Amino acid sequence: MSENCIFCKIISGDIPSFKVFENDKVFAFLDINPLSKGHTVVIPKTHCERLEDLPEEYSSAIGSALPKIAKAVITGTGALDWNLLQNNGKSAGQEVPHLHFHIIPREKSDGLGYRWKPTKLDMEKGKTLCEEIKQSLEN
Amino acid sequence: MSENCIFCKIISGDIPSFKVFENDKVFAFLDINPLSKGHTVVIPKTHCERLEDLPEEYSSAIGSALPKIAKAVITGTGALDWNLLQNNGKSAGQEVPHLHFHIIPREKSDGLGYRWKPTKLDMEKGKTLCEEIKQSLEN
Ligand SMILES: [Zn+2]
Ligand SMILES: [Zn+2]
Repeated sequence: MSENCIFCKIISGDIPSFKVFENDKVFAFLDINPLSKGHTVVIPKTHCERLEDLPEEYSSAIGSALPKIAKAVITGTGALDWNLLQNNGKSAGQEVPHLHFHIIPREKSDGLGYRWKPTKLDMEKGKTLCEEIKQSLEN
Repeated sequence: MSENCIFCKIISGDIPSFKVFENDKVFAFLDINPLSKGHTVVIPKTHCERLEDLPEEYSSAIGSALPKIAKAVITGTGALDWNLLQNNGKSAGQEVPHLHFHIIPREKSDGLGYRWKPTKLDMEKGKTLCEEIKQSLEN
Protein backbone atom coordinates (compact mmCIF):
# COMPACT_ATOMS: atom_id res chain seq x y z
CA MET A 1 0.00 0.00 0.00
CA SER A 2 1.20 3.50 -0.81
CA GLU A 3 0.55 6.43 1.56
CA ASN A 4 -0.86 8.98 -0.82
CA CYS A 5 -2.52 6.69 -3.34
CA ILE A 6 -6.23 7.27 -3.81
CA PHE A 7 -6.80 3.69 -5.02
CA CYS A 8 -4.92 2.19 -2.05
CA LYS A 9 -7.25 4.25 0.15
CA ILE A 10 -10.27 2.93 -1.72
CA ILE A 11 -9.05 -0.64 -1.11
CA SER A 12 -8.54 0.04 2.60
CA GLY A 13 -11.94 1.75 2.82
CA ASP A 14 -10.46 5.10 3.91
CA ILE A 15 -12.11 6.51 0.79
CA PRO A 16 -15.62 5.18 0.17
CA SER A 17 -16.52 3.58 -3.16
CA PHE A 18 -19.28 1.66 -4.87
CA LYS A 19 -17.55 -1.71 -4.62
CA VAL A 20 -18.86 -4.34 -7.02
CA PHE A 21 -16.27 -7.10 -6.43
CA GLU A 22 -13.48 -8.06 -4.08
CA ASN A 23 -11.34 -11.12 -3.44
CA ASP A 24 -7.92 -11.52 -1.83
CA LYS A 25 -6.02 -9.95 -4.77
CA VAL A 26 -8.56 -7.97 -6.82
CA PHE A 27 -10.90 -5.03 -6.07
CA ALA A 28 -13.49 -3.47 -8.42
CA PHE A 29 -15.65 -0.37 -8.05
CA LEU A 30 -17.75 2.04 -10.10
CA ASP A 31 -15.79 4.89 -11.68
CA ILE A 32 -16.87 8.15 -10.06
CA ASN A 33 -16.48 9.91 -13.44
CA PRO A 34 -17.96 7.29 -15.75
CA LEU A 35 -17.60 7.39 -19.53
CA SER A 36 -20.80 5.35 -19.72
CA LYS A 37 -23.30 3.70 -17.39
CA GLY A 38 -21.56 0.88 -15.52
CA HIS A 39 -17.99 2.12 -16.13
CA THR A 40 -16.05 0.00 -13.65
CA VAL A 41 -12.45 0.14 -12.42
CA VAL A 42 -10.60 -3.09 -11.59
CA ILE A 43 -7.38 -2.92 -9.56
CA PRO A 44 -4.87 -5.23 -7.89
CA LYS A 45 -4.78 -5.14 -4.09
CA THR A 46 -1.11 -4.21 -4.17
CA HIS A 47 0.32 -0.85 -5.09
CA CYS A 48 1.94 -1.11 -8.50
CA GLU A 49 2.06 1.62 -11.13
CA ARG A 50 2.24 -0.26 -14.41
CA LEU A 51 1.03 -3.59 -15.74
CA GLU A 52 4.48 -4.65 -16.91
CA ASP A 53 5.64 -4.51 -13.28
CA LEU A 54 2.70 -6.36 -11.71
CA PRO A 55 3.69 -9.61 -9.95
CA GLU A 56 2.32 -12.67 -11.73
CA GLU A 57 0.12 -13.77 -8.81
CA TYR A 58 -1.83 -10.53 -9.21
CA SER A 59 -1.90 -10.42 -13.01
CA SER A 60 -3.24 -13.97 -13.24
CA ALA A 61 -5.80 -13.20 -10.51
CA ILE A 62 -7.00 -10.14 -12.43
CA GLY A 63 -7.09 -12.19 -15.63
CA SER A 64 -9.32 -14.72 -13.88
CA ALA A 65 -11.61 -12.10 -12.36
CA LEU A 66 -12.11 -9.83 -15.38
CA PRO A 67 -14.51 -12.06 -17.38
CA LYS A 68 -16.74 -12.56 -14.31
CA ILE A 69 -16.78 -8.89 -13.38
CA ALA A 70 -17.40 -7.84 -16.99
CA LYS A 71 -20.25 -10.32 -17.36
CA ALA A 72 -21.91 -8.88 -14.26
CA VAL A 73 -21.38 -5.30 -15.47
CA ILE A 74 -22.99 -5.94 -18.86
CA THR A 75 -25.80 -7.93 -17.25
CA GLY A 76 -26.35 -5.18 -14.67
CA THR A 77 -26.32 -2.35 -17.22
CA GLY A 78 -27.96 -4.03 -20.19
CA ALA A 79 -25.13 -2.91 -22.48
CA LEU A 80 -23.89 -5.80 -24.56
CA ASP A 81 -20.63 -4.43 -25.94
CA TRP A 82 -17.70 -3.09 -23.95
CA ASN A 83 -14.07 -2.08 -23.98
CA LEU A 84 -11.33 -3.16 -21.65
CA LEU A 85 -8.75 -0.39 -21.36
CA GLN A 86 -5.64 -0.05 -19.29
CA ASN A 87 -3.27 2.93 -19.58
CA ASN A 88 0.41 2.77 -18.63
CA GLY A 89 2.16 6.12 -18.25
CA LYS A 90 1.15 9.73 -18.79
CA SER A 91 1.53 9.65 -22.59
CA ALA A 92 -0.93 6.75 -22.56
CA GLY A 93 -3.52 8.67 -20.51
CA GLN A 94 -2.80 7.22 -17.05
CA GLU A 95 -4.00 9.61 -14.36
CA VAL A 96 -3.86 7.60 -11.12
CA PRO A 97 -0.47 5.89 -10.60
CA HIS A 98 -1.99 2.64 -9.29
CA LEU A 99 -2.56 0.38 -12.28
CA HIS A 100 -6.19 -0.05 -13.17
CA PHE A 101 -8.34 -1.65 -15.83
CA HIS A 102 -11.40 0.17 -17.17
CA ILE A 103 -14.48 -1.84 -18.10
CA ILE A 104 -16.40 0.57 -20.36
CA PRO A 105 -19.88 -0.50 -21.53
CA ARG A 106 -20.57 0.67 -25.07
CA GLU A 107 -23.57 1.60 -27.18
CA LYS A 108 -23.68 2.26 -30.91
CA SER A 109 -22.65 5.84 -31.81
CA ASP A 110 -21.80 6.80 -28.22
CA GLY A 111 -18.78 8.82 -29.35
CA LEU A 112 -16.37 6.77 -27.24
CA GLY A 113 -13.78 4.22 -28.36
CA TYR A 114 -10.14 4.25 -29.33
CA ARG A 115 -8.79 6.59 -32.00
CA TRP A 116 -8.00 4.11 -34.77
CA LYS A 117 -5.40 5.29 -37.28
CA PRO A 118 -3.92 2.13 -38.73
CA THR A 119 -0.76 2.04 -40.80
CA LYS A 120 0.75 -0.79 -42.85
CA LEU A 121 3.47 -2.97 -41.37
CA ASP A 122 6.67 -2.85 -43.39
CA MET A 123 7.72 -6.51 -43.74
CA GLU A 124 11.45 -5.92 -43.31
CA LYS A 125 10.99 -3.64 -40.30
CA GLY A 126 8.45 -6.08 -38.87
CA LYS A 127 10.92 -8.92 -39.08
CA THR A 128 13.61 -6.91 -37.27
CA LEU A 129 11.18 -5.64 -34.62
CA CYS A 130 9.83 -9.14 -34.04
CA GLU A 131 13.37 -10.41 -33.39
CA GLU A 132 14.05 -7.52 -30.99
CA ILE A 133 10.89 -8.23 -28.99
CA LYS A 134 11.59 -11.96 -28.86
CA GLN A 135 15.12 -11.27 -27.65
CA SER A 136 13.77 -8.98 -24.91
CA LEU A 137 11.41 -11.79 -23.86
CA GLU A 138 14.27 -14.25 -23.48
CA ASN A 139 16.32 -11.92 -21.27
CA MET B 1 -10.53 -23.75 -33.47
CA SER B 2 -13.01 -22.14 -35.85
CA GLU B 3 -12.93 -22.90 -39.61
CA ASN B 4 -13.06 -19.40 -41.00
CA CYS B 5 -11.30 -17.50 -38.24
CA ILE B 6 -8.23 -15.57 -39.33
CA PHE B 7 -6.73 -15.67 -35.82
CA CYS B 8 -7.26 -19.43 -35.48
CA LYS B 9 -5.36 -19.75 -38.77
CA ILE B 10 -2.57 -17.56 -37.44
CA ILE B 11 -2.29 -19.82 -34.38
CA SER B 12 -2.17 -22.96 -36.55
CA GLY B 13 0.37 -21.34 -38.88
CA ASP B 14 -1.91 -21.55 -41.93
CA ILE B 15 -1.61 -17.77 -42.09
CA PRO B 16 1.93 -16.49 -41.42
CA SER B 17 2.57 -13.89 -38.72
CA PHE B 18 5.38 -12.18 -36.89
CA LYS B 19 5.05 -14.24 -33.73
CA VAL B 20 6.63 -12.68 -30.64
CA PHE B 21 5.38 -15.11 -27.96
CA GLU B 22 3.68 -18.47 -27.60
CA ASN B 23 2.96 -20.89 -24.79
CA ASP B 24 0.31 -23.63 -24.43
CA LYS B 25 -2.60 -21.17 -24.02
CA VAL B 26 -1.43 -17.80 -25.35
CA PHE B 27 -0.17 -16.53 -28.73
CA ALA B 28 1.14 -13.03 -29.57
CA PHE B 29 2.09 -11.46 -32.88
CA LEU B 30 2.71 -8.06 -34.48
CA ASP B 31 -0.43 -6.34 -35.78
CA ILE B 32 -0.23 -6.14 -39.58
CA ASN B 33 -1.95 -2.72 -39.44
CA PRO B 34 -0.18 -1.17 -36.46
CA LEU B 35 -1.38 1.98 -34.73
CA SER B 36 2.20 2.51 -33.58
CA LYS B 37 5.57 0.78 -33.78
CA GLY B 38 5.39 -2.49 -31.85
CA HIS B 39 1.57 -2.75 -31.83
CA THR B 40 1.09 -6.34 -30.73
CA VAL B 41 -1.97 -8.61 -30.62
CA VAL B 42 -2.32 -11.18 -27.81
CA ILE B 43 -4.88 -13.99 -28.19
CA PRO B 44 -5.97 -17.16 -26.40
CA LYS B 45 -5.27 -20.42 -28.21
CA THR B 46 -8.95 -21.31 -28.16
CA HIS B 47 -11.64 -19.77 -30.31
CA CYS B 48 -13.78 -17.50 -28.17
CA GLU B 49 -15.41 -14.28 -29.28
CA ARG B 50 -15.63 -12.20 -26.14
CA LEU B 51 -13.66 -11.86 -22.92
CA GLU B 52 -16.69 -12.44 -20.70
CA ASP B 53 -16.99 -15.94 -22.24
CA LEU B 54 -13.32 -16.93 -22.01
CA PRO B 55 -12.71 -19.99 -19.79
CA GLU B 56 -10.77 -19.11 -16.65
CA GLU B 57 -7.75 -21.25 -17.52
CA TYR B 58 -7.18 -19.04 -20.57
CA SER B 59 -8.00 -15.70 -18.93
CA SER B 60 -5.59 -16.34 -16.07
CA ALA B 61 -2.92 -17.52 -18.54
CA ILE B 62 -3.33 -14.32 -20.56
CA GLY B 63 -3.24 -12.28 -17.35
CA SER B 64 0.07 -13.94 -16.47
CA ALA B 65 1.57 -13.49 -19.92
CA LEU B 66 0.56 -9.87 -20.60
CA PRO B 67 3.08 -8.14 -18.29
CA LYS B 68 5.96 -10.18 -19.75
CA ILE B 69 4.93 -9.61 -23.36
CA ALA B 70 4.33 -5.90 -22.73
CA LYS B 71 7.71 -5.50 -21.05
CA ALA B 72 9.40 -7.06 -24.09
CA VAL B 73 7.40 -4.88 -26.49
CA ILE B 74 8.34 -1.64 -24.75
CA THR B 75 11.95 -2.76 -24.39
CA GLY B 76 12.06 -3.78 -28.05
CA THR B 77 10.49 -0.56 -29.32
CA GLY B 78 11.92 1.96 -26.87
CA ALA B 79 8.44 3.35 -26.16
CA LEU B 80 7.86 3.64 -22.43
CA ASP B 81 4.11 4.20 -22.28
CA TRP B 82 1.42 1.96 -23.70
CA ASN B 83 -2.27 1.07 -23.76
CA LEU B 84 -3.88 -2.29 -23.29
CA LEU B 85 -7.12 -2.41 -25.24
CA GLN B 86 -9.62 -5.17 -25.81
CA ASN B 87 -12.87 -4.64 -27.72
CA ASN B 88 -15.97 -6.80 -27.20
CA GLY B 89 -18.65 -6.49 -29.88
CA LYS B 90 -19.09 -4.33 -32.96
CA SER B 91 -20.26 -1.24 -31.05
CA ALA B 92 -16.99 -1.49 -29.12
CA GLY B 93 -14.86 -1.64 -32.27
CA GLN B 94 -14.23 -5.39 -32.44
CA GLU B 95 -13.40 -6.41 -36.01
CA VAL B 96 -12.11 -10.00 -35.75
CA PRO B 97 -14.49 -12.25 -33.76
CA HIS B 98 -11.68 -14.04 -31.89
CA LEU B 99 -11.04 -12.13 -28.72
CA HIS B 100 -7.75 -10.24 -28.73
CA PHE B 101 -5.83 -7.78 -26.60
CA HIS B 102 -3.99 -4.90 -28.22
CA ILE B 103 -0.68 -3.75 -26.74
CA ILE B 104 -0.26 -0.24 -28.21
CA PRO B 105 3.03 1.58 -27.52
CA ARG B 106 2.45 5.32 -27.07
CA GLU B 107 4.41 8.51 -27.56
CA LYS B 108 3.47 12.01 -26.44
CA SER B 109 1.06 13.75 -28.88
CA ASP B 110 0.75 10.71 -31.16
CA GLY B 111 -2.97 11.37 -31.72
CA LEU B 112 -3.98 7.96 -30.38
CA GLY B 113 -5.70 7.05 -27.10
CA TYR B 114 -9.24 6.63 -25.89
CA ARG B 115 -11.87 9.33 -26.37
CA TRP B 116 -12.33 10.54 -22.80
CA LYS B 117 -15.66 12.22 -22.10
CA PRO B 118 -16.23 11.78 -18.37
CA THR B 119 -19.54 12.41 -16.66
CA LYS B 120 -20.38 12.63 -12.96
CA LEU B 121 -21.76 9.59 -11.16
CA ASP B 122 -25.16 10.24 -9.62
CA MET B 123 -24.91 8.83 -6.09
CA GLU B 124 -28.43 7.37 -5.99
CA LYS B 125 -28.12 5.79 -9.42
CA GLY B 126 -24.63 4.55 -8.55
CA LYS B 127 -25.94 2.81 -5.46
CA THR B 128 -28.68 1.05 -7.43
CA LEU B 129 -26.35 0.08 -10.25
CA CYS B 130 -23.76 -1.23 -7.79
CA GLU B 131 -26.40 -3.49 -6.24
CA GLU B 132 -27.49 -4.75 -9.68
CA ILE B 133 -23.94 -5.60 -10.67
CA LYS B 134 -23.24 -7.34 -7.36
CA GLN B 135 -26.42 -9.36 -7.74
CA SER B 136 -25.39 -10.42 -11.25
CA LEU B 137 -22.04 -11.53 -9.84
CA GLU B 138 -23.69 -13.75 -7.28
CA ASN B 139 -25.87 -15.52 -9.86
ZN1 LIG C 1 -2.02 2.41 -4.72
ZN1 LIG D 1 -10.59 -18.08 -33.79
